[in-house]
Amino acid sequence: MAKKSFPLSRVYGLLEPGPVVLVTTAQKGRANIMTMSWHTMMEFEPPLVGCVISDRNHSFGVLKATKECVINIPTVELAAQVVGCGNTSGRKVDKFKAFGLTPAAASRVKAPLIDECYASLECKVVDAKLVAKYCFFILEVLKAWIDTSRKDPRTIHHLGRGAFMVAGRTIKLPSRKK
Amino acid sequence: MAKKSFPLSRVYGLLEPGPVVLVTTAQKGRANIMTMSWHTMMEFEPPLVGCVISDRNHSFGVLKATKECVINIPTVELAAQVVGCGNTSGRKVDKFKAFGLTPAAASRVKAPLIDECYASLECKVVDAKLVAKYCFFILEVLKAWIDTSRKDPRTIHHLGRGAFMVAGRTIKLPSRKK
Repeated sequence: MAKKSFPLSRVYGLLEPGPVVLVTTAQKGRANIMTMSWHTMMEFEPPLVGCVISDRNHSFGVLKATKECVINIPTVELAAQVVGCGNTSGRKVDKFKAFGLTPAAASRVKAPLIDECYASLECKVVDAKLVAKYCFFILEVLKAWIDTSRKDPRTIHHLGRGAFMVAGRTIKLPSRKK
Repeated sequence: MAKKSFPLSRVYGLLEPGPVVLVTTAQKGRANIMTMSWHTMMEFEPPLVGCVISDRNHSFGVLKATKECVINIPTVELAAQVVGCGNTSGRKVDKFKAFGLTPAAASRVKAPLIDECYASLECKVVDAKLVAKYCFFILEVLKAWIDTSRKDPRTIHHLGRGAFMVAGRTIKLPSRKK
């Protein structure tokens, strides 16, 4: 892994475009992976991320109990693994083994980074007020990592029913916003 | 406009990939447009959308008061207008006039559709519990419209600091998820 520390003030640029992410959790020494697309930035710094993790998912109970996770951002080379993680449940499958993904120790949380992912965001739950009604967690990003050797990372973006948009070209415009 | 009614059950596929959107509001006969990227799906049907609209924006007060808006999805052809709407404030500028965009009557809300946008989602605020702390609104999509004549709509996705990713190719994978 060539991952380097990444400034928290720039995390929004990783999540705003809406990539499919792999959320890792860990409990009692056992790590799990969940595929997720329902997330949004909520604050720049410290970065806050809101996300929906359904209570039908194994990760829901683990996140609720441990209050920690890592948001890992995969690129198109991992598309088969991303879909595999989405099609299976951590109740039955060790997804790291099943999909050949490598857990790496995080610095601030017990959930692991996924070594093969382009970027990883170590997070803790800071607000669970909407969990009961919407399964909506508000996370603070404590530490961010990025693989700076990847020059053209192509994230994937869920369109529904097995279709994914692969990130295309980048354009520059005279935006005055962050 | 060639917009046709679009099933509410499929709205998630429009917002999950994380496009930049143009949010329209209206109050006292005056419509406004705001550029926005901080949104997430929260439920499939009826579709719920969570979004952050900063209290520094003119649209914040209008949305809070009227509880109605339209989420319009632009494509790359409108990139200059999208950035223009982001760089200006509805307090000073009539953005429809300034950027040559056409308001069209919605069916369920007073805020207008933007005729030039690929898709438009008429919304009402259904939960404002996190507005005070995070400027986070939960919207229900009441009615969805799509321009079915657009065969290759290329949404744009904010990367920060004037950079936008243009939607690339679509791949199909054997996902068992919606």
